[in-house]
Amino acid sequence: MTKIHQFAKQSVDKSTEIAELSAVGFYDDGCRKATLLRHLLYHALPEYHSLSSKNMWLDEHLATPSTSILTFITDKQALTKTIFYTIASQLLGYDTELTDNAYDGQQVFKSVGLETTDVSDVYHAWYLLLNTHTKNGLLFIDELASHGYFKTTNQRIYFNGKSMATYDTTNLVQETVWVETSVDSDLDGQLDLVQVDIQRPDTTEKLPVLFTASPYYQGMMLKENDAKIHHVNVPLVHKVSKQVARDVVTYQEDKAVNHPFAREIKGWASAATKTFTTLSGHAWDLNNYFLSRGFAVAYASGIGTRHSDGMQDTGSPDQVESMKNVVEWLAGNRVAFTDKTSQIAIKANWSNHKIAMTGRSYLGTLATAVAATGVSGLETIIAEAAISDWYQYYRDNGLVIAPGGFPGEDMDVLAELVYSRMKDPADWARTQKQWQQFQTKTKNLQDRSNGNYNNFWDARNYLNRSHHIKADLVLVHGLNDWNVKPRQVYRLWQALRGNGYNNKLILHQGQHININNNRSLDFADQMNLWLVTKLLGQPSQVSTQLPNVIWQDNTQSQSWHGLNEWGTTSQTVAYHLSTGQLVKNVTKGEVSFTDKLNPDLFEQSATNFSQWREKTLRQSPDLSKTQQHFKTPTLIDDHIIDGEVVLKLHVKSSQNIGLISAMLVDYGEDNYLKSQPTNQGVKIDRGVNFAQVDLQEFEVEHANHKMITLGHINLQNRTSAWQADDLQAEQYVTVTLTLQPTLYHLRAGHQLGLIIYATDFEMTIRGNQGIVYTIDLAHSLLTLPE
Amino acid sequence: MTKIHQFAKQSVDKSTEIAELSAVGFYDDGCRKATLLRHLLYHALPEYHSLSSKNMWLDEHLATPSTSILTFITDKQALTKTIFYTIASQLLGYDTELTDNAYDGQQVFKSVGLETTDVSDVYHAWYLLLNTHTKNGLLFIDELASHGYFKTTNQRIYFNGKSMATYDTTNLVQETVWVETSVDSDLDGQLDLVQVDIQRPDTTEKLPVLFTASPYYQGMMLKENDAKIHHVNVPLVHKVSKQVARDVVTYQEDKAVNHPFAREIKGWASAATKTFTTLSGHAWDLNNYFLSRGFAVAYASGIGTRHSDGMQDTGSPDQVESMKNVVEWLAGNRVAFTDKTSQIAIKANWSNHKIAMTGRSYLGTLATAVAATGVSGLETIIAEAAISDWYQYYRDNGLVIAPGGFPGEDMDVLAELVYSRMKDPADWARTQKQWQQFQTKTKNLQDRSNGNYNNFWDARNYLNRSHHIKADLVLVHGLNDWNVKPRQVYRLWQALRGNGYNNKLILHQGQHININNNRSLDFADQMNLWLVTKLLGQPSQVSTQLPNVIWQDNTQSQSWHGLNEWGTTSQTVAYHLSTGQLVKNVTKGEVSFTDKLNPDLFEQSATNFSQWREKTLRQSPDLSKTQQHFKTPTLIDDHIIDGEVVLKLHVKSSQNIGLISAMLVDYGEDNYLKSQPTNQGVKIDRGVNFAQVDLQEFEVEHANHKMITLGHINLQNRTSAWQADDLQAEQYVTVTLTLQPTLYHLRAGHQLGLIIYATDFEMTIRGNQGIVYTIDLAHSLLTLPE
Repeated sequence: MTKIHQFAKQSVDKSTEIAELSAVGFYDDGCRKATLLRHLLYHALPEYHSLSSKNMWLDEHLATPSTSILTFITDKQALTKTIFYTIASQLLGYDTELTDNAYDGQQVFKSVGLETTDVSDVYHAWYLLLNTHTKNGLLFIDELASHGYFKTTNQRIYFNGKSMATYDTTNLVQETVWVETSVDSDLDGQLDLVQVDIQRPDTTEKLPVLFTASPYYQGMMLKENDAKIHHVNVPLVHKVSKQVARDVVTYQEDKAVNHPFAREIKGWASAATKTFTTLSGHAWDLNNYFLSRGFAVAYASGIGTRHSDGMQDTGSPDQVESMKNVVEWLAGNRVAFTDKTSQIAIKANWSNHKIAMTGRSYLGTLATAVAATGVSGLETIIAEAAISDWYQYYRDNGLVIAPGGFPGEDMDVLAELVYSRMKDPADWARTQKQWQQFQTKTKNLQDRSNGNYNNFWDARNYLNRSHHIKADLVLVHGLNDWNVKPRQVYRLWQALRGNGYNNKLILHQGQHININNNRSLDFADQMNLWLVTKLLGQPSQVSTQLPNVIWQDNTQSQSWHGLNEWGTTSQTVAYHLSTGQLVKNVTKGEVSFTDKLNPDLFEQSATNFSQWREKTLRQSPDLSKTQQHFKTPTLIDDHIIDGEVVLKLHVKSSQNIGLISAMLVDYGEDNYLKSQPTNQGVKIDRGVNFAQVDLQEFEVEHANHKMITLGHINLQNRTSAWQADDLQAEQYVTVTLTLQPTLYHLRAGHQLGLIIYATDFEMTIRGNQGIVYTIDLAHSLLTLPE
Repeated sequence: MTKIHQFAKQSVDKSTEIAELSAVGFYDDGCRKATLLRHLLYHALPEYHSLSSKNMWLDEHLATPSTSILTFITDKQALTKTIFYTIASQLLGYDTELTDNAYDGQQVFKSVGLETTDVSDVYHAWYLLLNTHTKNGLLFIDELASHGYFKTTNQRIYFNGKSMATYDTTNLVQETVWVETSVDSDLDGQLDLVQVDIQRPDTTEKLPVLFTASPYYQGMMLKENDAKIHHVNVPLVHKVSKQVARDVVTYQEDKAVNHPFAREIKGWASAATKTFTTLSGHAWDLNNYFLSRGFAVAYASGIGTRHSDGMQDTGSPDQVESMKNVVEWLAGNRVAFTDKTSQIAIKANWSNHKIAMTGRSYLGTLATAVAATGVSGLETIIAEAAISDWYQYYRDNGLVIAPGGFPGEDMDVLAELVYSRMKDPADWARTQKQWQQFQTKTKNLQDRSNGNYNNFWDARNYLNRSHHIKADLVLVHGLNDWNVKPRQVYRLWQALRGNGYNNKLILHQGQHININNNRSLDFADQMNLWLVTKLLGQPSQVSTQLPNVIWQDNTQSQSWHGLNEWGTTSQTVAYHLSTGQLVKNVTKGEVSFTDKLNPDLFEQSATNFSQWREKTLRQSPDLSKTQQHFKTPTLIDDHIIDGEVVLKLHVKSSQNIGLISAMLVDYGEDNYLKSQPTNQGVKIDRGVNFAQVDLQEFEVEHANHKMITLGHINLQNRTSAWQADDLQAEQYVTVTLTLQPTLYHLRAGHQLGLIIYATDFEMTIRGNQGIVYTIDLAHSLLTLPE
């Protein structure tokens, strides 16, 4: 059953309703009430151009179970609320629901979670209807637009606080410029130029800009990436212990660097001399939605990518600076050229100088990083599944930790993937040697043999600079994203708290995916309202109207809740560890496990780590010697785990090395949301027959367990990620392992499980060193924020 | 390694080359030879609009391993063949191949199977290059077009016999009309109207038309379809024997039917009154390719679909007639109206009255059926994976036989799927009762309990009317298509032989898929040359230039051969059956198998019939009692099996019922082509940034067996599909089972296998009746056409 959640629907007063209905052509002063619905319906069929053809549509749809709309209107029967919403259900595409609800439109609206109103004021009911979501994932007014309701004359129309799809996407200006950055990452004595591809409606209106910084955009070196993947079947090694203060690992910019001078400007161009027909890389779906709504869009892949200068250094200050420089050009504060050699400059004279950065994953990461420079002109970012700290992406607590699904990846591997200058044979021939040297340097600095936090990582930790942020941030993250893990957004959200800006957070139950095209949440509408406010200066209540946190319930489909905060509870529930159990009282004794699999099982687990994880969750006997499982009794009440679960362990290793992993698991035969949304067999239009994408929804599946969260720590990093503590064989130590944060609804009748183990075949290195770990139960504790 | 096969490349004389180069703007009379290449290259960069930006491209690409094109051109070095093709390789996108071939462009061309020429005549070399395929699956001239080389001014340009992408797809006319058919399938006393959606460039030129008849086009009733699926775990029943002559089952049109009069025409419209923004259903990729090249496209889903009148009757004469009627309107020979009630008529005054029908599966089936009406105006069809005889689709040799992958489907199920009038609530309310009665009639006529050929099936066998065909046909079929099986095209191809028309056949190694977007075969170019000749009347050598048969080699990737014929060999190779073996000499003895699985295994096989087939091919012990396997010795030579393999069996059943299935298998550890093509990570453009689709290629996989073909027969249909012969328990009978035709390269070192069994869990009913079948080896024979 479909359930629609509309957070971006604004209540406006009657006069505003009439004014807006007039502006979009639905209000007719002279229309008698008796014929008003007919008038509105005829007007709502933009593809039917004669009375006879319009009547054809009315004849195919029902007003009552036995009366077509045509008959109803011809006979001038009285309009009831049920009839209005029966017709409305069909206008919105809820035909199946209409059959399922015995042709009672009011019931249909109720069943899909939509608002109804008294229909004595037909204009008011119609206004609400235009702002109601169709089954195809669009506002009804947007769906009309996608069928040609508006002429795409590039004239801006606001409706209920949102910019309408009135811009012509069939003749976009698509042009390329090269922004002169303030870095010289290839040390050739010239400031690096970076390519920017721009798409914009062909209008004289100054347009707000969505900028997506994507190193992937110029293409990926897949084969070269694969060749760089690091071996992970390597032993854990002992680290020499040493006290390290935080400031020792603090990154300091090298002020002594002599930056080259800016190029001389030899002239100004009024138009770009490089255009394009098809984007070099992938378009960002959300950007397409806004293109048709009168926003310009810019893509850049930054230094060290195809058609740009420079070396590729994942997440580095230089990379961030190059993306910041693009914002500066878009905001009118920097020079760009029409090509790489002519020194003919060009202005973004089509820009209104208000910019939002968008994107998911690496793209959202760079949006976050640029926001943390405090650059002028950047009014907001919409960062989905973004990294806020690269150490947390490839390392954790003194360990090399892979993003879920990508063992062996690292900063140099990702750099290789996007060093797309390889794609142009002559450019590659010229830069190949320097690139190989550069990669050697990166490999040394990232230091996989150690795993500790250092200056290299500190330079790539944007949380350090979060206090510079001068923009309202929208953060979107999946609570089942084990690639860019939830801590990335949690720590940033914490850092933003009370910074005086208006920030919003959406926590969905997906993995590393978008929610732009989700049916049950009006994400695109929210962003429309948001950007119209932030970039076009239109007044709205968006800051207060959108909840601070929108959280997707993990127990059922299509359920989104507005919350005030995440992870601020001061209440906790604690469990002591007992053999096989999580209990309320302290117990005594020890449990052990040996981190060693026989060669076959090791190979199998290494090759198919998803299967290994699934077997672990199922408590497969294959793995029992390498893991300790603990479970609570069946829970009497529902619980919400809100924030970071902490596992304190008193533990010893049989060797002078050691790592501990832990998973928290929900056990109970029940429906669980899938973390991958399912295509709904419908396309959403991003304008008028433009850039259509699949409509998606999270569906439920029946299962008997679900991993809630997990964490990993090196026993030598008990104090911090940057300090190696001593560890002796058989020496009991206390380690505090903070698991990835969550917001999880644990249902009554389920059991909470904890699995303690060492090698995580998907994420840690795999030493298979036969280390025996022993846990002192009496001094171990699991603490849940609730 | 990429291998390109271009069958549609025409050789033209020098003056034609120059004339065509002039027409597309590449020929410059005044250009000196020394600077000619530079001139051409500058001109071949349509997205670079200044010298400086063009030079940027030249600077990124190589002329020699150590010299950029820019340097080469600036220094005025001598042009060699190697340099020309090194540059050409990069223009065509073969960059990886260039690296792999040590920057020797001539080697690149050789390695990917492309033609080179002496470069002393640069214009000639350039002309050839423009007609050479890029790595992205397009002619170089088409790829230039897709980057905006041509202005889309709707002016037709021919180049090397093909129509260029010069038509504007950003402002297509998209309109709907209702054709008045000559049938009244819902018996309401009015001729059925069917909706036709038209897409066409906005030009005054009279355009040729591609028409796709697709009952799916108006949407599918998936849930209702599933509810109709027939049970297949049902017993085989004894049929009362009876002599039946062929003419008894011959369909006779009921001449007594009183057809309603045509509607009165109340006026003429100059423009449609119903337009659309997005097609109601799926666009056909090949149609999109032609839209940008100055063809109009029409879609209709026929009677008994959404927005049209009538009942839905799979493959019926009425359905075919309704599609023929659409062709008649497109050809100027029939009336259409602007809507369903006004009786305002509208002409296809934009049509040049020459029509081709296109489509795969059901779509191609209706193209074939309409061709077999001999309708005027239909000059050709491009029918992919089409049904020529519905009996062969849902029945065979007196058995209910499912299309591969769809057990339980039948004529009524498919009708339910496409009776999309259910989608409009009022239309459904009005027709529901009549529809259910109509479906009951269909269910009775298709007669699943019997399985014999009858008048119902004869009315839906287009082979009966193949002598009416007055068009040149292009047939495309997958030799691994077990949904629409290869016999469908084989029988039609046989029927067409010597009919005086020019027919072409492409046999690929895929299953039920398209080859429009295959990288290694220039299918779209061929169709362009074909349709320019057939629909635009341009002279060409297409009839002789394209091979009669293009066959994809099943032993390696990207290998396509031109052949004269298929299945005309008179040579055969015969094998006698021996226990476990196929041998050259007659042997004696009997072998038996029992068609019975235990409940678990039965359930497993029924649920996962792909696994059942795979286990059968692997000779799994699980199934050994239900099957007999025979293998030749290791083959010394290569063999080509060309046509229909015939299995003669002397066989008895332990009951008075029986069916025999047989599979022919290639055994040998080797590379086999996958029957599902793989996306190549590249999109092909269907115009200028229009309707892009994934480029695909068949890749190879390592395996030790491959099913070649199969067949099924009811032991009571030894004489014909329409006559039930008698069968007694334990009575030996001789049955001749003709397997599905093939064209298969069986390699030396492999073994040919034959599997004889009864229940085919994917295709037959599953009686699990414990029938014991015994084969008399001495009187059984396998005969292969070679």
